[in-house]
Amino acid sequence: MNERKKAPGDELRQAGRVERFHLGLDSLGPGEKRHLHELMVDHGPGNGKIMLLPIDQGLEHGPSDFIVNPPAGDLEFQLSLAEEAGFSGVACHIGLAERYFRKYAGRVPLVLKLNGKTAILPEDRPFAPLDAGVEEAVRLGADAVGYTLYVGSPLEAEDIAQFSRVRQEARRFGLPIIMWAYPRGPFVESRGGGRDSLAMVDYAARLANELGATLCKINLPRPPKGKGYDAQSPFKDYNAYLDISEIDALRMVIRSAGRTGVLVSGGSRLTDQELLDKTRLCLEAGVDGLIFGRNIWQRKYEDALRLSREIRAMMQKFTAA
Amino acid sequence: MNERKKAPGDELRQAGRVERFHLGLDSLGPGEKRHLHELMVDHGPGNGKIMLLPIDQGLEHGPSDFIVNPPAGDLEFQLSLAEEAGFSGVACHIGLAERYFRKYAGRVPLVLKLNGKTAILPEDRPFAPLDAGVEEAVRLGADAVGYTLYVGSPLEAEDIAQFSRVRQEARRFGLPIIMWAYPRGPFVESRGGGRDSLAMVDYAARLANELGATLCKINLPRPPKGKGYDAQSPFKDYNAYLDISEIDALRMVIRSAGRTGVLVSGGSRLTDQELLDKTRLCLEAGVDGLIFGRNIWQRKYEDALRLSREIRAMMQKFTAA
Amino acid sequence: MNERKKAPGDELRQAGRVERFHLGLDSLGPGEKRHLHELMVDHGPGNGKIMLLPIDQGLEHGPSDFIVNPPAGDLEFQLSLAEEAGFSGVACHIGLAERYFRKYAGRVPLVLKLNGKTAILPEDRPFAPLDAGVEEAVRLGADAVGYTLYVGSPLEAEDIAQFSRVRQEARRFGLPIIMWAYPRGPFVESRGGGRDSLAMVDYAARLANELGATLCKINLPRPPKGKGYDAQSPFKDYNAYLDISEIDALRMVIRSAGRTGVLVSGGSRLTDQELLDKTRLCLEAGVDGLIFGRNIWQRKYEDALRLSREIRAMMQKFTAA
Amino acid sequence: MNERKKAPGDELRQAGRVERFHLGLDSLGPGEKRHLHELMVDHGPGNGKIMLLPIDQGLEHGPSDFIVNPPAGDLEFQLSLAEEAGFSGVACHIGLAERYFRKYAGRVPLVLKLNGKTAILPEDRPFAPLDAGVEEAVRLGADAVGYTLYVGSPLEAEDIAQFSRVRQEARRFGLPIIMWAYPRGPFVESRGGGRDSLAMVDYAARLANELGATLCKINLPRPPKGKGYDAQSPFKDYNAYLDISEIDALRMVIRSAGRTGVLVSGGSRLTDQELLDKTRLCLEAGVDGLIFGRNIWQRKYEDALRLSREIRAMMQKFTAA
Amino acid sequence: MNERKKAPGDELRQAGRVERFHLGLDSLGPGEKRHLHELMVDHGPGNGKIMLLPIDQGLEHGPSDFIVNPPAGDLEFQLSLAEEAGFSGVACHIGLAERYFRKYAGRVPLVLKLNGKTAILPEDRPFAPLDAGVEEAVRLGADAVGYTLYVGSPLEAEDIAQFSRVRQEARRFGLPIIMWAYPRGPFVESRGGGRDSLAMVDYAARLANELGATLCKINLPRPPKGKGYDAQSPFKDYNAYLDISEIDALRMVIRSAGRTGVLVSGGSRLTDQELLDKTRLCLEAGVDGLIFGRNIWQRKYEDALRLSREIRAMMQKFTAA
Repeated sequence: MNERKKAPGDELRQAGRVERFHLGLDSLGPGEKRHLHELMVDHGPGNGKIMLLPIDQGLEHGPSDFIVNPPAGDLEFQLSLAEEAGFSGVACHIGLAERYFRKYAGRVPLVLKLNGKTAILPEDRPFAPLDAGVEEAVRLGADAVGYTLYVGSPLEAEDIAQFSRVRQEARRFGLPIIMWAYPRGPFVESRGGGRDSLAMVDYAARLANELGATLCKINLPRPPKGKGYDAQSPFKDYNAYLDISEIDALRMVIRSAGRTGVLVSGGSRLTDQELLDKTRLCLEAGVDGLIFGRNIWQRKYEDALRLSREIRAMMQKFTAA
Repeated sequence: MNERKKAPGDELRQAGRVERFHLGLDSLGPGEKRHLHELMVDHGPGNGKIMLLPIDQGLEHGPSDFIVNPPAGDLEFQLSLAEEAGFSGVACHIGLAERYFRKYAGRVPLVLKLNGKTAILPEDRPFAPLDAGVEEAVRLGADAVGYTLYVGSPLEAEDIAQFSRVRQEARRFGLPIIMWAYPRGPFVESRGGGRDSLAMVDYAARLANELGATLCKINLPRPPKGKGYDAQSPFKDYNAYLDISEIDALRMVIRSAGRTGVLVSGGSRLTDQELLDKTRLCLEAGVDGLIFGRNIWQRKYEDALRLSREIRAMMQKFTAA
Repeated sequence: MNERKKAPGDELRQAGRVERFHLGLDSLGPGEKRHLHELMVDHGPGNGKIMLLPIDQGLEHGPSDFIVNPPAGDLEFQLSLAEEAGFSGVACHIGLAERYFRKYAGRVPLVLKLNGKTAILPEDRPFAPLDAGVEEAVRLGADAVGYTLYVGSPLEAEDIAQFSRVRQEARRFGLPIIMWAYPRGPFVESRGGGRDSLAMVDYAARLANELGATLCKINLPRPPKGKGYDAQSPFKDYNAYLDISEIDALRMVIRSAGRTGVLVSGGSRLTDQELLDKTRLCLEAGVDGLIFGRNIWQRKYEDALRLSREIRAMMQKFTAA
Repeated sequence: MNERKKAPGDELRQAGRVERFHLGLDSLGPGEKRHLHELMVDHGPGNGKIMLLPIDQGLEHGPSDFIVNPPAGDLEFQLSLAEEAGFSGVACHIGLAERYFRKYAGRVPLVLKLNGKTAILPEDRPFAPLDAGVEEAVRLGADAVGYTLYVGSPLEAEDIAQFSRVRQEARRFGLPIIMWAYPRGPFVESRGGGRDSLAMVDYAARLANELGATLCKINLPRPPKGKGYDAQSPFKDYNAYLDISEIDALRMVIRSAGRTGVLVSGGSRLTDQELLDKTRLCLEAGVDGLIFGRNIWQRKYEDALRLSREIRAMMQKFTAA
Repeated sequence: MNERKKAPGDELRQAGRVERFHLGLDSLGPGEKRHLHELMVDHGPGNGKIMLLPIDQGLEHGPSDFIVNPPAGDLEFQLSLAEEAGFSGVACHIGLAERYFRKYAGRVPLVLKLNGKTAILPEDRPFAPLDAGVEEAVRLGADAVGYTLYVGSPLEAEDIAQFSRVRQEARRFGLPIIMWAYPRGPFVESRGGGRDSLAMVDYAARLANELGATLCKINLPRPPKGKGYDAQSPFKDYNAYLDISEIDALRMVIRSAGRTGVLVSGGSRLTDQELLDKTRLCLEAGVDGLIFGRNIWQRKYEDALRLSREIRAMMQKFTAA
C-alpha cells in the first residue's frame, strides 16, 4: 500500500507492475483517475486489478441471502472483511453506506450503488429505480457509483435514459461509474438466447462501452444454447461460436467492452476451488477485476477472509509479464 | 419530562436508562438526532422507546373507521389523548396537521405523513402519491415525516424513486423519515407468501434499511403459510422457519432492519389484554417502539387513556437491565 | 354589504350574526381569511354562508347544457345574475374568466376553476388535467381556486399528486382552495356503492379534509343501496345506516369534512320548490354553503334572479340562534 | 394596407369598417391586440376578417398531398401566394418557418404551428406532441401560434395539460393562440356522433372558449346523423336539431365559441364554386375568418391566386352594414 | 484541404466548385454554417458533399456486426480509416467518443449520436432514448449531433417531443442536427407499405424537413409493393408511382426534404460494385451525401480504405457542371 500518490496508468506501466489495463485510463478525466487510483492501487491487489465486495443483495434478493450466514446481514461483516483481506472496496446502497461507512472511511473505498429493486416482482419488466443520487455519493466520499441496467428489458428505454442522466452527473463530479450490465427480461430469453448467453453478455459489454460506463460488471458468458439462433435472428452470427471455450467467450466479451473495464461477478454459491478456478480463468482472459459477493460473505468470517486472501494473491500474480 | 436538553444515545446509555438502541443514532446527523430526542426522550416513555399515535386511517380506510367511536374523527381526540397519556407524537396528513396542530405545537410532536391513498381501488397496483412536501413538514414544526412504501407492488419502482426524493429532501432538512414498510400487491400474495408472512415483513424491514429510512413501521410477521415456498421460490430458505415462534420471527425482522429503528403497528382491533401482550412481546423482541392507532382511538376516550398509560408504563420498564 | 373590513370568524361570532362556522377559520392564514371574507361577508348572504354560482359545465358537459336556455352560454348571464342576486361569487375556467370578468372585477368574486375535462370519454379512468395555474388566479384577482378530484378513480394517485401541487401553490399565495370532491369511476360503482352513496360521499369529504382543501363541494349523500355492502367490503360498517335520513346522512358527511367547509351542489334540474327544500335541508344540516349551477342558470334570467334571491334570503335566516 | 398603426377594435368599429368582431378584442392584452392587428388589419382582407393559408399538411398527411401539385411542396409557393393574394398570414411548422420565412418577414405574417403528428398511426389515441416552443415563435417574429387539440381523444387529459402550458407561455409573450379544435378518436365516433357532427364541433368550439384560445379553427358542423343520440347520451339534447340548416348549425357553434374567434377550415378538395359558396355561408354565419389550405394550394399557382383574390374580395364585403 | 476559412454556400457557388446545395445553407445560423464547413469543405470530398462513417451499430445491432471483421469493433479502425480516406466525419455514441476521439480531435470531425437502443426488443414500439446531451457534444468538440426518430412508431409522439427538445438545444449551441429518419413499427408495415417503401421514406424526409433537421439520413426508397395501397389509404396517391424508377423515387424524396439535406445510408452488405453503383445513383439524384457504415467497416482495413477512396473520388466529380 506504499504506492500512494502514484496515478494508475503510465506510471504503473512504466514500473512494469501492471500487465495491461483493459480500461482506457488515458481517456478519463483527472477526477475519475484519482478515484480509480483508490480502487486499483491504494486498495485491493494494488497492481491495477480491482477486487470488489458487493453487498446489495439485501435489496435485490432480500434478507434470505443472509440465512446461511446471519452475521453477514450486518455491513460490519463486509467492511471489516474488506479491510482485513484487502479488497478494493465495498459496494452497497445508501441506507447501509450512511449508517456503517463512517467508521471505515478512508480505509475501505465505497462504491455507492444508486439503483435497485426487490425480487418480489416477476422479471417481465425489470427496471431498477434510483434510490440515491450522485451528489450523495460525493457527500459520502464514495470512489465510484454503481448502476444496474437491464439490457433488453421492455423498460430498456427508461433505463438507458436514467443511466444517461446518472452518467452525466457522475462525469460532472469526476466519479467513475460501474454498470451492472445485466441482460434480463422476456425478450432476452425468447430472442436473445438467455441472460448468460454469449450473445447477450457480449451485447451488455458493448452497451456499457457505447453508453460510457467506466467499468461494467458482467456474468461469465455461456456459448449459445442448443442448435443456436435461427436464420432470422439478429444474433445468428453467434452460431459460429457454438463450441467456443469459456475463456475465449470471455475474451470476446472483454473485446466488446472496448476501453470500459470488465469486472466478472461471482453469481451463486461455488466451492472454494471452483471460485479460485473461476478467478484464474477470468484473470487469464484479461479482466480488470472481480466482484464476488455471496461467494465470499455467505462463508463464515474466517473462511471468507482466507479465501479472499487467496483470490487477492492470485490477482497480484497477474502483473507485468 | 425533565430530561430536556439531553441527547438520545450516549448519554442515555451512560445513564443506564436505556436497554439498547436498535436504531443507529450514532450514524445520524445532528438535525435527525435533535428531532428524535423529542420522540424518544422529551415525549413518550422517555427512555428511548417511541410510542406513536397514528391517525391517517381517515384517508387510508375512510371515515368508516370512526363509526365505532365518532369523536375520534376529530383530531382533537388524538391530540388531547397524546398529550394526556404521554405519547411520543401523533402521525397525520397535512389537512389535519394544518387545522388542528397549532394548539398542541410544542406539547405533542408531529409526524407529518406525506403520502396516502383511499381504499376504494382494489390493491392490484398499490401506490400512495405525495399529498404534502417535506418543506411543509418543516414549516409546521414536525419532528419527522412518514412515508408508505408498498414493497413488491407492480408500481414498486415508482415508489422507490418517490421515496428516494423524499428521503433526500428530509436529509437536507435534518428530519427523520419513518417508512410505513408494507408488502402489498398481487405478487406479494402469489409469490411472497402474503403481506404479513415472515419473508415479506423481513424483506420490508431490510428494504427500509437499504433505502435509508430512519425508522420503519411493520406488522408482526407470521411464519410461512402451509407447507412453505416451493423449490424455485426466491424465498424458499424461509422454509427453515416454518415453526418459528412469534417473538423469534420478530427478532429476525429487527435484525434485518439493521440500524433502522423498528416500530410495530397495532393492526385491527384487539382486546386490552391482547394489546398488552402484543406490546410485551414486541418489547421483549427489542423493538424501538409501537405505533398503535385504531386499537387506541377506536376506544372511548377514558378507556383509550387508561390503556395508553398502561402501555407506556410497560414500555418504561424496558430500560437498562 | 356594509360589513366590509370585518374579518369572518371571531367578529361575526361575537356579533351573533353567525350561527356557526363549520370550516376552521382559525386555522387559516391571513391571505385565505382575507379572501374568504369576500365570499362569506362582503358578498353572498353576508352571514358567513357561501352561495356560489358555478359555470364550468360548458367544459364538463359541453354546450348542450345551454340548449334549454341559450343566453346562459354567455358568462355575462351568470355575472350579471351573480351581482344582481347577491351571490358570493362565480366559478369558471380561465377562458371565460379572462374574457368576461374584468367588467365585474371587485363586484363579483371569482373562483378560478383550474382543471376539467369533456364528457366525450367514458368514465372508466376519470381525471381532470390542469388548464390554468394558481398564479393566473392571483393575476386575475380571484378569491379562490377550484379543483376537481375524482376520488376512487383508477387515476386517483395522479389526481392526489396534482391536487397536492396545486394546494401547495395556493397556500403560497394565500388563496383558498375548493375541492370538487367527486367519487367517480368503475370501482366507486362496483365496490363503493355508487358515486352518491353515503360511504363514497363521506369518504370524499374526509379526503378533502385530510388533503387540506379549504372547502369542498359534494353531492347530497344517499343511504347504501339494496341490502348494503357484503361482509368483506371495506365499507361494510355503513350497513348500520341503511335507513339513515337524508339530513342525518349529510350531517355525517359534514362531520367527516372536519374543519374543511362543505358546499352542496345542486345537481341536475329540480323544480323551484324542490330546490328550496334542498336548500333548507342543507342549511339545517349545517353546511357552509351551496353551489347551484344548472338549477339556477337553466332558468330564464328573471326566474333565476327571483329564485336566487329566495335562496339567499333563506340562507340569511341561518344566522345566530 | 394604409390602416397601419390603427388598432383593431374600437377604431374599426368607429370607422364603420367592421361589421362586428366575434372575438373579444377588448379582453385581450396589448401584445395580443398588436399581433392580431397584423392578421386583421395590416394583412388579409383588412376589415378585421382573417384569411389564413395553412401549410402543415406535409406533416399531418405527408408529402402525398403535394402529388397533385408538386410545386406546393416548397413553402415559396405558399409565401409568394400569400403575399400576392393578400392573405392574413401563413401557418406552418418550425422546419419550414426557419428555412423559408426570413425572405418574407414583415411582408407575410407567420403563424407558427407548435404541435403535430403523422398520419401513419391509426387514430385510436390521437395526440400531437410539441415540435417547437412559444419562445421560438417569438424569436421568428410570428404573430400567433397554432396548437392542435384532439377533443375527446383518450389522451385528452395530456392534450389539455399541454395546451395549458403553451397558452400560459403565449400569454406571457403576448402572442395570440389559435386552437385547431378537432374532435377525434374512437369515443367521438362511438359516443359523440362523429368528428364533424354538430355536437362535437359545438363542443370543440366551447372547449376553445373555456380553455382560453384566442381563435379556434373548426370544421363546418353537420346535423346529427340518422335518428340522433339515444336517451342516455350526454348529447341527446342535440336531437332537437336533426334538421338544422348548415348556416344555423354554424351560428350555434360560433355562439359556443363565445369571445374566442372562429376560423372555418376548408377540408378536402372542392370546386371553385363550392369553395366560394362555403366562404359566403361562413361569412353570413359570422365567422371571423377562413383557413383554407389544400383547397388553395392544390391548385396551380395562377388558379390559386385568382381564387384567393375572389375569396378575399368576398370577405371584404362583409364590413359594416 | 486548403479551402479552410471559406464558408460553404455563396463562396463555393461563386467558385463554381459546387454543383448545387440541396440543403438550405442560407437559412442556417452562423454556428451551424461554421460546423457544416468542417463536414462539407474542410473534410470529406471538399466540394460540399458529405461522406460520413457511422459506427453506432455496436449499440443498435450489438457486437455481432463485428464478427465478420473484429478489428472494426475498436473505434481506432474507423477513426484511422476516416482520416486516411478523407471522410467528412465519424458518427458514434458518447462512450466511444469520450474514449477514442481525443487523439483525432481536429483531424476527423465528430457527429455525436445522441440516442439509441438495442436490437433485443421486438420492433413493436420502437423508441430510442437519449444516452447523451447536446452540451456533451459541445464539450467534446463535435460538429453535429445525430438523432434517430422512428417515424410512425406507436411512440412517435414521445419521439417528436424528445427530438424537439434536442433540436432546440442544438440550435442554442449552433450545432447542426442530423435526423436518422426511419419509418418503423407495426403501422409502417400494416398501413404504410413497409419501412423502405416510397411513401414511408418520402414521409420521413418531409418530417425531417417539417421538424427542422439540418440533414436527414434515409434509406433508398422502393416503389409501393404489390398492387399498391387500397382506396381508403392515406397513401393511395402513391399508387401513381408503382413503376417509378429508383432514381426518380429518390429525387421525389429529396424534393420532400426541402432545404433539409439528404444523406443516403448504405444498409446491409453490398459488393464493391453495387456500392459504387448505389453511390452514383444517389449522386445523380442529387443527394447531399452518403453515410455508409457496415458496407465500409465490415471490410478489411485496406479494402475499406481503397473503396472509400473510390467513393470519395466519385463524389468529388459531382461538382459544378
